[in-house]
Amino acid sequence: MSQAFPFQAVFNTGTYVANPVMLAVDAMGGDRAPAMVIEGLDLALAHRPNVRLLLFGRAVELAGLLKRYRRVSAVAEVRDTQDVIGGGERPSSALRSGQNSSMRRAIDSVAAGEADGVVSAGNTGALMAMAKFVLRTLPGVGRPAIASAFPTLRGQSVILDLGANVDCGADNLVQFAVMGEVFARKVLGIEKPSVGLLNVGQEELKGNDAVKKAAAILQGSALSIRFHGFVEGDDIAAGTVDVVVTDGFTGNVALKTAEGTARLLTHFLKQALLSSPRARIAGWLAAPALRRMANRTDPRQHDGAMFLGLNGVCVKSHGGTDAVGFASACGVAIELIADGVNEEIKRDFAYLRGGTGHPPERATG
Amino acid sequence: MSQAFPFQAVFNTGTYVANPVMLAVDAMGGDRAPAMVIEGLDLALAHRPNVRLLLFGRAVELAGLLKRYRRVSAVAEVRDTQDVIGGGERPSSALRSGQNSSMRRAIDSVAAGEADGVVSAGNTGALMAMAKFVLRTLPGVGRPAIASAFPTLRGQSVILDLGANVDCGADNLVQFAVMGEVFARKVLGIEKPSVGLLNVGQEELKGNDAVKKAAAILQGSALSIRFHGFVEGDDIAAGTVDVVVTDGFTGNVALKTAEGTARLLTHFLKQALLSSPRARIAGWLAAPALRRMANRTDPRQHDGAMFLGLNGVCVKSHGGTDAVGFASACGVAIELIADGVNEEIKRDFAYLRGGTGHPPERATG
Repeated sequence: MSQAFPFQAVFNTGTYVANPVMLAVDAMGGDRAPAMVIEGLDLALAHRPNVRLLLFGRAVELAGLLKRYRRVSAVAEVRDTQDVIGGGERPSSALRSGQNSSMRRAIDSVAAGEADGVVSAGNTGALMAMAKFVLRTLPGVGRPAIASAFPTLRGQSVILDLGANVDCGADNLVQFAVMGEVFARKVLGIEKPSVGLLNVGQEELKGNDAVKKAAAILQGSALSIRFHGFVEGDDIAAGTVDVVVTDGFTGNVALKTAEGTARLLTHFLKQALLSSPRARIAGWLAAPALRRMANRTDPRQHDGAMFLGLNGVCVKSHGGTDAVGFASACGVAIELIADGVNEEIKRDFAYLRGGTGHPPERATG
Repeated sequence: MSQAFPFQAVFNTGTYVANPVMLAVDAMGGDRAPAMVIEGLDLALAHRPNVRLLLFGRAVELAGLLKRYRRVSAVAEVRDTQDVIGGGERPSSALRSGQNSSMRRAIDSVAAGEADGVVSAGNTGALMAMAKFVLRTLPGVGRPAIASAFPTLRGQSVILDLGANVDCGADNLVQFAVMGEVFARKVLGIEKPSVGLLNVGQEELKGNDAVKKAAAILQGSALSIRFHGFVEGDDIAAGTVDVVVTDGFTGNVALKTAEGTARLLTHFLKQALLSSPRARIAGWLAAPALRRMANRTDPRQHDGAMFLGLNGVCVKSHGGTDAVGFASACGVAIELIADGVNEEIKRDFAYLRGGTGHPPERATG
């Protein structure tokens, strides 16, 4: 999944983690791995004393790096793995022949209970295929979804699915709504998140069968989800709802359209600020303010997309990320683990399937 | 369809029209009708001596306005219609009981051969339903599509469908590709437009069944369409292809997501230019350049979405448009008529169905 300005997760990083977290790391995933991975971990550990690491990758390469990053080597155990999943490898091929890869072994360690979650900046399709196969979905979850937070006019919201499932039925969308709501509560700290279904109009008559059926189910849901109804594409950036639910085809196109639009407008702005001597002076004067604006929406600060609905935390960092971005993704994984997002999703789904009793109590993150 | 900065049609207006054009106008459609309609027509006629008008609306109201706009009254014939389709009216209800409305009568005049095309700023759903029912689709066209041009890093491109069809099969997408290619050639003047199918990845394996099948058909098509393959959301604003083909659900969400993102970034930019005394001075100095940038992407300059695939030209202007926007939409309709877009589409579809002989000769607009 491409990750660029500005539609990326905006997480609070540097939170104090009370319970010890064991994080498995695919040290070989990403264009600039393993150097950026180790440097990123060093940044991520700066304010998180309670984190321990299982590093999967080529031990000889990692040893040299770990000598330079004492904060990492102090809490890391290296598991020597020679194989690496290539960026262009097909998910099916990675699943078949990547059993000794750093990515697979890192996921295996979560399934074995050695680690609480895994982070990788490697091949998205391979990571999703392996994570689904190894970790399995949580009870009641038909399909996992890729979720990410993004900046809005009102703060930040969550959108899912961003590309795990190109075809989604009403049940999938309802499950995404439940998982996204937990994500917004626990990770973004929104007490009672509103949930909207992405559609082509706000009227009940509009849309395809899947969104219409999902809306009917959510309106009658026993879970106390604050269902807003339908939202449209422009509601995403407006922050009309805290959780935007859609299928992986539409979600992926929307995310990338937003990225492309941001690039286009940035280009127009640069052109405007070079269009006359007066504009050039304005550009020079505005530079510090524009840099702050760019920092605020810096994709590296907001790296980390969560695979929601699996039996274990799995976070994807951007393939082209640097250490700063990888550190953000690690922060996301650590918070997801520390906040018990999966336990909360499990409770909600158990209640959904049981259908009786009171909805589970909802503690905010 | 909501129309805002910056994903709107960028048409050359003011082209000299060689052959006389008869344009039917729904004078009562749009929030500010009929005053903005007559004022908009006055602007549209400024450089177009060969256009005549059939105005449908309340004759008494129109008479007062026409007295003030001599350029319009000189070429206009008024057809008195008392009924008006409301903005919130359901398409089915408009179809059933709106037979004497200004919108319906304007469309009827195209079917009757009195006018070459119709423009309305009224209810989109009602306009599409009536236009489909009255004008019917061109031979070989399963479903019409809403098409619009938009600004890109490389100039401008066409995107369709923007919301006429929420569920599309491969055949629909292929037909959209054929129609969009003609639009790009005749209206945007691109000699050999490239066509891309919107998808979640560029690899052949990715995507849903409809886009995969459509890609296979376009690759083997007898028409000499320059098929680029799959494109992703960020390719829209990048201008990677001249024609972006997608279903109405995804296209509508993508268009509105782009609009929302543009609003969000404009908001961030304004905040940045108010964030310090130095930034405020920069903002003051940059104001003329920023205004030029805003003009360039002013939605009013780019108003006018085409309903492609119908037996007659039908253009929708934004419901909240003013005279400037309505004039742009009229310009679009006039060019579509003068350039013979529908004749070209008919030729392409006849060739597609026949399947023999040479592809029709393609004259560029």
